[in-house]
Amino acid sequence: MEYRKIKDQDKDGDPVEDDIENSHGKPHSGGPVNSVATLGLSNRSKWKLKSIVTITLTVLTSSQGILIVWSKRAGKYEYSVTTANFLVETLKCALSLAALVRIWRREGVTEDNKLSTSFDEVSVYPIPAALYLIKNLLQYYIFAYVDAPGYQILKNLNLISTGVLYRIILKKKLSEIQWAAFILLCAGCTTAQLDSSSDRVLQTPFQGWIMAIIMALLSGFAGVYTEAIIKKRPSRNINVQNFWLYIFGMAFNAIAIFTQDFDAVINKGFFHGYSLITTLMILNHALSGIAVSMVMKYADNIVKVYSTSVAMLLTAFVSIFLFGFHLSLAFFLGSMVISVSVYLHSIGKLQR
Amino acid sequence: MEYRKIKDQDKDGDPVEDDIENSHGKPHSGGPVNSVATLGLSNRSKWKLKSIVTITLTVLTSSQGILIVWSKRAGKYEYSVTTANFLVETLKCALSLAALVRIWRREGVTEDNKLSTSFDEVSVYPIPAALYLIKNLLQYYIFAYVDAPGYQILKNLNLISTGVLYRIILKKKLSEIQWAAFILLCAGCTTAQLDSSSDRVLQTPFQGWIMAIIMALLSGFAGVYTEAIIKKRPSRNINVQNFWLYIFGMAFNAIAIFTQDFDAVINKGFFHGYSLITTLMILNHALSGIAVSMVMKYADNIVKVYSTSVAMLLTAFVSIFLFGFHLSLAFFLGSMVISVSVYLHSIGKLQR
Repeated sequence: MEYRKIKDQDKDGDPVEDDIENSHGKPHSGGPVNSVATLGLSNRSKWKLKSIVTITLTVLTSSQGILIVWSKRAGKYEYSVTTANFLVETLKCALSLAALVRIWRREGVTEDNKLSTSFDEVSVYPIPAALYLIKNLLQYYIFAYVDAPGYQILKNLNLISTGVLYRIILKKKLSEIQWAAFILLCAGCTTAQLDSSSDRVLQTPFQGWIMAIIMALLSGFAGVYTEAIIKKRPSRNINVQNFWLYIFGMAFNAIAIFTQDFDAVINKGFFHGYSLITTLMILNHALSGIAVSMVMKYADNIVKVYSTSVAMLLTAFVSIFLFGFHLSLAFFLGSMVISVSVYLHSIGKLQR
Repeated sequence: MEYRKIKDQDKDGDPVEDDIENSHGKPHSGGPVNSVATLGLSNRSKWKLKSIVTITLTVLTSSQGILIVWSKRAGKYEYSVTTANFLVETLKCALSLAALVRIWRREGVTEDNKLSTSFDEVSVYPIPAALYLIKNLLQYYIFAYVDAPGYQILKNLNLISTGVLYRIILKKKLSEIQWAAFILLCAGCTTAQLDSSSDRVLQTPFQGWIMAIIMALLSGFAGVYTEAIIKKRPSRNINVQNFWLYIFGMAFNAIAIFTQDFDAVINKGFFHGYSLITTLMILNHALSGIAVSMVMKYADNIVKVYSTSVAMLLTAFVSIFLFGFHLSLAFFLGSMVISVSVYLHSIGKLQR
């Protein structure tokens, strides 16, 4: 509610998506061309930006998957996940600051790119980080009810919760076809992950389902809330917004180190068990995190969800060549459904 | 080409589908209501007929699946499949004739319901039966390359071939969304059939794939060709058309008995190995066959394909209660995709 109100008052608001979404009624083939043409170069370059951040996120997420596979094949690494997460937030924070310093040198300090902030602006920034922290804590308990492959399948509930919360919180409409596409995306991603042990997830007890749903809601809410925060002031420099988001990310991850891995860090050191792959994964996570923020700024959560789903397919395809992975029929069928879903989502925008 | 030409000249042609399909451009919610209203009662009753034959086909096909499961659980029956097929054709022929006799008594013999026919009309009737015969003969050879569950999965290629041939032969357009729905139907049906042994089908050798594709094309062509024959003269009584189709069906199945099961029939008798279930299955196949003809007359091959796919879901759901079947995650996901496909097919008609 509040987000919408503020955005509507904002003269600097990004009109690209709204205008394209309002173009229903126009014939399909002429739709996108007309919209882009009438919106002019400025919005065309915004569309370009949207495409670039989306592709970057997809590539980074795919390589993330490949790094995970690689690290699994290389054996288990006994590093503390909480310290790695803390370093990811620190690196993101440092990168945002470095970008800001460059901007300050080039353009000088303005109202939109100054680092100092009001309590009103910054007060909502801890919320996503806090939600992720709660979600990560719950993760320890859900494994009492489901195994790891089952959890991977249940994680697809995130897609549903993101779509529903995106609709409710950001008040953005998805067309009927886009809803259908979203259900298909969820079904396709799950299908692609099916293996002989997947049916075990159906035996998940009631408490497990409830926890999975709560975790999906927390994760979806954190994503949609981040978008709301970032889009609340469209003219505000994204690096400032990121800086504050990541500062709170660092703080909450510091809490996680103390509560979960304090003994391990004291006894074995902060960097125990780190390797080349760990370093690469931290670097990748940091860059992906920044890309996610960019997608939130210039696109939206729905684009993010599609981007990460397509990345899953890319990861698998690359793994076939890199690691000689076996392509299952389920994966093939899931990919087909995901591809149709992406297609339907794109035409669904124009055909309402 | 020829079919289209003749149909266009025909004043008695069924305008329901064309009119509904031409209503794109109208707002979605108002589409179907307007069409039905402006077309009047006669077309509304045709739409009713279309629904009734579709539902009948779905119910008959579902119970067919249940009978097959039942017969499998009751043990193997050593009857000759060719004699059963011959009896199915004979029964269909007899039922068509019985329906005709009733019509003759009520309405008298007219040009449209008389049994006698011209060579021009009847010359195309043997083609579907011949195509099915060739397909059934090929079936014996394909098992050299794939196992039975693999064949069940490859049979889903029928869906694709039906859609493509329907487009090419009957020159009917499917909207982009309807094509997407068709791909989803194929993916969903295959997903629903997945089990731990399904991946073996990916090891099918090249000859197996070629045969599977040829069989799918034969089966799709037979279906689409039957629709072309039946719709060529929309005013012609469906029972006369069925009678001639089934007469050739009997003839071709008689050939099959002689070439495949001659020894068994001579030594053990025509009805060897028949049981209650065999009788019920013959009865069911005969009624389903007539329902398929009705769907071809009053609806089309696309409706038939959807009807049989939904029947597969119904069979499985009923089997859960009747036989305590285990519902797999793959089946659940496949059902989801099939349901979305049915939904997209229905809205795709109006949203072009």
